[in-house]
Order: sequence, then structure tokens, then C-alpha cells
Amino acid sequence: MTQKNDFTEWYIQTIQKAELMAYSPVKGSIIFRPDGFELWEHIQEEFNLFLKAEGIRNAYFPMLIPQSFFMKEADHIEGFAPELPWVTEVGNEKLEEPLALRPTSETMIGSAFSDWINSYRDLPYEINQWANVFRWEKKTLPFLRTSEFLWQEGHTAHEGEEDARKRTMRVLDEYARLCEEFLAIPVYKGQKTPSERFAGAVDTYSIEAMMKDGKAVQAGTSHYMGTKFAEAFDITYLSKENKHVHAHTTSWGVSTRLLGALIMTHGDENGLVFPPTIAPTQVVLMPVGPWKKNPAIVEKLTALQASFKAKGIRVRLDDSDNSPGFKFNEWELKGACLRIECGPRDLENEQVMVKIRDISEKQAIPFDELEQYVDEALAAMTPRLLAAAKERNHDNEYLDIDTLDDLKAHIDTCQKEDKVTGFVLIGWDGTEETEAKIKEETGFTTRNIPFDVPVEKTVDIVSGKPAKHTVWIARAY
Amino acid sequence: MTQKNDFTEWYIQTIQKAELMAYSPVKGSIIFRPDGFELWEHIQEEFNLFLKAEGIRNAYFPMLIPQSFFMKEADHIEGFAPELPWVTEVGNEKLEEPLALRPTSETMIGSAFSDWINSYRDLPYEINQWANVFRWEKKTLPFLRTSEFLWQEGHTAHEGEEDARKRTMRVLDEYARLCEEFLAIPVYKGQKTPSERFAGAVDTYSIEAMMKDGKAVQAGTSHYMGTKFAEAFDITYLSKENKHVHAHTTSWGVSTRLLGALIMTHGDENGLVFPPTIAPTQVVLMPVGPWKKNPAIVEKLTALQASFKAKGIRVRLDDSDNSPGFKFNEWELKGACLRIECGPRDLENEQVMVKIRDISEKQAIPFDELEQYVDEALAAMTPRLLAAAKERNHDNEYLDIDTLDDLKAHIDTCQKEDKVTGFVLIGWDGTEETEAKIKEETGFTTRNIPFDVPVEKTVDIVSGKPAKHTVWIARAY
Repeated sequence: MTQKNDFTEWYIQTIQKAELMAYSPVKGSIIFRPDGFELWEHIQEEFNLFLKAEGIRNAYFPMLIPQSFFMKEADHIEGFAPELPWVTEVGNEKLEEPLALRPTSETMIGSAFSDWINSYRDLPYEINQWANVFRWEKKTLPFLRTSEFLWQEGHTAHEGEEDARKRTMRVLDEYARLCEEFLAIPVYKGQKTPSERFAGAVDTYSIEAMMKDGKAVQAGTSHYMGTKFAEAFDITYLSKENKHVHAHTTSWGVSTRLLGALIMTHGDENGLVFPPTIAPTQVVLMPVGPWKKNPAIVEKLTALQASFKAKGIRVRLDDSDNSPGFKFNEWELKGACLRIECGPRDLENEQVMVKIRDISEKQAIPFDELEQYVDEALAAMTPRLLAAAKERNHDNEYLDIDTLDDLKAHIDTCQKEDKVTGFVLIGWDGTEETEAKIKEETGFTTRNIPFDVPVEKTVDIVSGKPAKHTVWIARAY
Repeated sequence: MTQKNDFTEWYIQTIQKAELMAYSPVKGSIIFRPDGFELWEHIQEEFNLFLKAEGIRNAYFPMLIPQSFFMKEADHIEGFAPELPWVTEVGNEKLEEPLALRPTSETMIGSAFSDWINSYRDLPYEINQWANVFRWEKKTLPFLRTSEFLWQEGHTAHEGEEDARKRTMRVLDEYARLCEEFLAIPVYKGQKTPSERFAGAVDTYSIEAMMKDGKAVQAGTSHYMGTKFAEAFDITYLSKENKHVHAHTTSWGVSTRLLGALIMTHGDENGLVFPPTIAPTQVVLMPVGPWKKNPAIVEKLTALQASFKAKGIRVRLDDSDNSPGFKFNEWELKGACLRIECGPRDLENEQVMVKIRDISEKQAIPFDELEQYVDEALAAMTPRLLAAAKERNHDNEYLDIDTLDDLKAHIDTCQKEDKVTGFVLIGWDGTEETEAKIKEETGFTTRNIPFDVPVEKTVDIVSGKPAKHTVWIARAY
């Protein structure tokens, strides 16, 4: 299956063949196989550096949330109720109160904050949790939408709105940095429309990423809750003025969705492409030609492996019996960044052949230049992938669509010319009617109201009324 | 509450006051607060080094396990059934098949292994998972026995019994090393009796630790499964001889119980004591005396903090308004390894006062010797705590108890003399009757059949028949 023919099918097949994941017997749940889980581990390491620098500490809260907790914030329960799995029995006994598998932990952590926060001196109170969460989705897709997924959820409480909003934005900026610098995924920062807000939030901000097929992935969200959860869970503190007041809270998360975005941003017809920052295999070494007759080849590669490893490079040596062609395909499929081959003639010439995953030509590199070459090639690859993705995004942004007819025409043209529909910038009058109409007629949904508006749109795409906002819309995963 | 009066109550109060954990609204579930969770993170980092060196990779499997999976291994379901929480509904809809919250993942991973393992070339197949697991216990105690806990579970498949048993033992050795060298907890390695085996295992091995109150904590287990799970889940491979044969499997785990063992091994009347290897706070700096009038003091401490931090030392500066006495108590309670004080006179003398958590006297250390002093003090503390615990264990091992009357007399004496009952070495004829009788009459349970037997016992403590094994028994958490 090719990307060109059926992108989603390419995705589903590639991540299984490359052993990132496997389906599980439980509907919509997946197994993160070692290479897939390692991607998540690297994201954890990277984001933990940010948390540490900000003084936000990790904690762990119970996964089961009493039904009564959910009832305390009306918008919250309304938003999550249809997707909640419930524990109703233990052993053979019925529980007095059903317990939900957490879809997110505002309620549990809100209840704890209420106990722990007493005075303005305790604020800001900032906690992060790495955890599994559950949302029973009707339509699922590995990594992007699964019944169980892994994420981090940050929860913070502050003295006032300004502090809380600063935290909300600071994290959104970090999410954008993580995506761009670490995952080479360019993102669009902005505010979600009210209909797309997190259940219970005052404001939700997101980073949106454009996949190779032009569809959007909401890659991270950061929410300002005002005092809504503080009121529901009685998170109050004694202020400097000696008054009991409600804290302002935030929450924010990125999840294993990021793996889906990563694969759909960089993967190509040959399989996975990873920036070295996150690749489970940065360098793969392989002997070629009649190498079994010449033990010096594997000896040389083993020595190279050791020296790369010592430098912290994630390196593997493939000295299996498979044919070179098989190995080339397998390691391209798995997204190894650099492939280094050495055969009898290479050894004679004191060189190796190096293939960079996203560049077509192989290059001969002398042994004594290899270390520096590898360092530079790995360092250059992440920014190159980011630049390529940015250019592609740019080509797939449509800024001059002003009416629903324009949009439909755009969709038709894309279909005829075999192009992706991409991100479309529209004027919006702020009504849910416009959003509903767009969705119904085209399947596009509002992504966010961007902070950086390429062009101000003045007229609503549906109603023709004056636009209150300029908004990105797209089909989305 | 003192350790002397009521050890368990001391434990429960101390871990809450020190903010390691908090109770949650869900029965038997706890919140790991940042200092508590950080202990677990350090254990993860340490054990991940072992996994990496052994080539065992982390993965993540779904938490919900279909009821039918559980039914496949009869002993397994029998052992776990009473403790399993079941998801029976999602939203408002009843599930066709109830899903259990995993108590352990042999079934889920066995089913995956069955898909992934085809040939002897795929073996050994070795996977580890860090996860939350659920066992609804009747009596709970924070960290030591909770409805939800965190653990790692390793699962491996091998060509034959020998390889599988080697893996089982290699991990048990690493668990012992982790406890002794990293956590300063001396352990007793041995084999569990059949009645204490993991549900579905052929052989279960454990490390047992003795708490300050003489009671045992099973600190880690490693299981050889034979082909029992391979038969239940059809884990077969094509052997070198071209035959389809069942793999031999193992599983092994340590959990957040280790935090309980850590606290009950080292804590004292002043609070928590941690070896620096794992302490969330290795060094706490605090200004004393009339330090607010002399900004040079906090400047000096801030500079020290930066230089310690640069060396990777986990350091905090407490420049809060609390009194020195309050701060001393708080940081002793929280188990900071070194307390470094600096007041006006110290500054004048170019020195600080240093208090090591487990040593009574303070010492004056000149500024220019401080760095080396801190390095050495931190390096010396873990082995010192281990040696102290070993000595205490040694004092509380009883090797000359030959009859049930001896054991009861021992218990009486301990009660009268206010001593702990400790670990008792007995002869055992291998029957469950003996184990049941001991438990019924004294509350002692068999811990394990030690690999290093201090004295061979020849006669069963209850039946008087010839002993088949020499066994440690103790009261246990």
C-alpha cells in the first residue's frame, strides 16, 4: 500500500510492519512494541527537562475516579460521560459507587489540591503526571485515537488569572518547541473555538500539525480553567489580604498522539523516517558483499559500533544472514537515520558507504572522517526534516477561500489534481452555526484561531457576516 | 507517635507528614506525592540500566484484559479472581465481555508472544513493562499493599528450561543488588514454598527484607513458568530440529512496595532516612542566625547550591522564614542526607556546619574543603546504612528454634523484653499442614527457602518429622 493511494492504510500497515505497534484483543487498544515505546520514552526525557527547569514535579494519582467526583463540574462530566469505562465489580462483589477509568485527572488532582493548598505561600502549586488514560472512542486509529493512551497531564494552581494564563502560554510554547525542534513537526499555535474547548475550561489553546495528506492532528493542548475547577473542588487559599479566595487553575497535555503525528509528518513510501533526536536507531551498520569470508569486516563494524555507542549514539549492527537488499528495506522501513555499509572493497579502500535516510545518494566516507561525518549528518537531519515539512505545509495552506462554494471548489480541484486539501484560512463570525455548516458540507473542522494570522479575513465563510476571527480549518484525525 | 510504641502507626504518620504520599478517596489507593514519586523514578532509572545492559527492551501493553484470557490458565485465574476489578460498562452501555484491570500481564503478553515468536531465531524474546496494576486487597497499607500500585514486570520466552532458569536467577540477583547497593536494604534470597508461589508458576524465587520491627517484606519475585503459560497461550516456535515446540517463559517484578521497605528499613524517630543513591534531597542548605541582615550568607549558599547542582547533586536551599529549629526538624523528617548551615559567624570563619542525617554530631567544614567533604559523605552513607541494617538483621535472626513451643516462647520473650520477633530459621517437612499450623498459632509465614542456609535444620518444627528444607519464617507485611 502506498502513501499516494491510501495514506491511512499506508500508515496502519507501516507501523505494524515496522513493529512500532500491534493491535490488541481489546477494541481500540494497542500494544506499544519496543521501538514504538522508545519513541515515547524519548519524548518523556525531553519534556522532563522542561518540567525540571520550571520546578514542576512529577507525581502519580489514582487511576480510578469515583462517580461523585465527576459530578462536581457539570461541563466536565457532560463532555466525558459517553466515553467513560466504569469499574462496577471487584471479584464477585458489586461496588457501592462505580469508579471511572480516568480520561483526565482534573477531578482527582483538584480534590488533592484542595487539601494541600492553604495559603498564597503555597502558590503556584504545579504538578505533572505521566499516566495511562481512557477514552472509549467510536472510531480508533493507532496512536492517534485509542481507547487507552499514554500522556502527561500538568495541573497547576495560581494566585490569579495573570499567573495562570502565563503558565498556560508558557507550556503551549514549550509544546511547540518540542514539536518543532525535537520532532521536526511544524505546528500552528492558536486558540480553540468554544465548541472545541476542553470540557470545563475557560480557554483552550492548541498546537495543530499538518500531516502529509493535508489532514490536521491536534498535537497538544493547554487550558486555562479560571476558577471553575477551584469552585467545584473547593481549591481556596488565604490571600495576602487574609481572605479565602479561589485559585486559578490550568491543565495541559501531550500524548502518544505525537507518535502518530511524527510518523505521518515524515514517513515516506519506503517506511518510517525519524529525526535523529528521537530515532530508536540513529545508525545501523551492516556488512555487505562476501563479508563472511572476511572476518575483518565485522571486526571493523563492531569497533565502529562500540565507538558510536560510547558517544551515546543509538547504533545497531545487523550481521544477520538476510540479504543486503532485505536489510536495506528493513532498516529504511524502521526509520534508521544513517545506514553504514562495509564490504571487502570498502575495507581495502579504508572507507564505508553511507546512506542518509532522507537523501537518495550514497556517499563513500573514509574511515578517518567517519566520526565527524556521522556527527554532522545526525545534527543536520532534524532541521532539514523540519524545513521540508514547513515547505510542504506552506504549499498546502490556502488563504484565499472566502465562501463555502470556494471551499467546495477547492476540494474538487484537489481531488482532480490529486492534491491534499490542507489548511484553509477562513473568516468566522464566531457562531457554532458556521462551524456546523462547514463540517456538514465539507468535513472540515475549525482547528484554531492562530496567534500569527497570515491574512486577516473580514467576512464569515458561511453567513457572509463580518468576521470576528480568522480561523484555520482542515479535515482532522 | 514513635517507632517504639507503634511502628505501623509511626510509618503511616511519617510518610504523610513527610509528604511522600496522601490517601485518596478510592479505598486502598494512594497518591504518590512528588518526593514519593521521585523515589520510584530513581528506582526506574537504576533498573533501566540493567535492562539496557541485558538487551531487554521496554514496551507497553493494554491495561484491560478480556475475561476469556484469564480463563486460559486455571491456576492463574484461581489465584487472582477474588482481587480483580472489572470494567463492565462504557458510557451507558454494557460490554459484551467484562474486562479486568490487569493484576499482572502474563495473559496479555503471552497472547502477544504467541503472535511474535515463530522460530528459535526469535528467542530469547525479552520484554519489560513499567505499569500500574490492580489487586483489590482487603487490608491495605501505603506502598506495601495498595489496590493500585506501580511496578515493572519482565516477561521472557526461551528455547529451553536452562535458559529460562538462568534468566529467572539473573534477575533475582539484580533485584538483590538493587536492594543492597542502591537502597541499602539487605535481602534474603531464596525459593518460595509451593503455597506461596505465583499463581501459575512452576517455581517462584524471592528476595525478602527485614524491617526495623522485625517483620518481613517480600521485596521482589522472579518466576520460572515452565511451559504452562506457553501451553495456555500457544507460544510455540520452530526449533532447530524443525519441530513446533513450546517456549519456556519467565516473569519477574519489583513494585512500589520497595518504597515501603526503604522507609521501614532506614527511618528513625526523627523521620525518614534515605541513602543518597535515592534521596530526593541529598543536600539541604540553610542560613541560620540573624542571616537576613547579612545578604552575603544567602549569596554564599546560593553559590554553593549552584556548584552542587552542576555536579548533579540533588540540592535545595531553604531560605524560608521558618525558624532554624523548624527547618532542622522538617528536613530530618523528609530525609535530607546532609544539612549544611551557615550563619554570620560561620561566614566570618569561612566555614559551614554540616550534619549528616544518620550521625548525631555536627561538624564544622571549611569552605575550601566542603566540596570534597560532601562527595565523601554522600559516598559513605549508603554502605554505612547497609552495614547498619545488616547488623540489625543479624541480631534479629533466630537459628535455634526447633519446636512450635520454642517459637511461642520466643514470641513471649520478645514481647516481655520489647524486642522484635525477627526472622526464625526452621526445619520443614514440606507439608502445607506445617505452614498452616505455624500461621494459625503464631502469625508467622514461610518467607523463603534460603540459598545460603546459615544452619541446616533437620526436624520439622511442627510435625517433628525429618525436615526436607530449612526455611525462614517471620511475620510479614
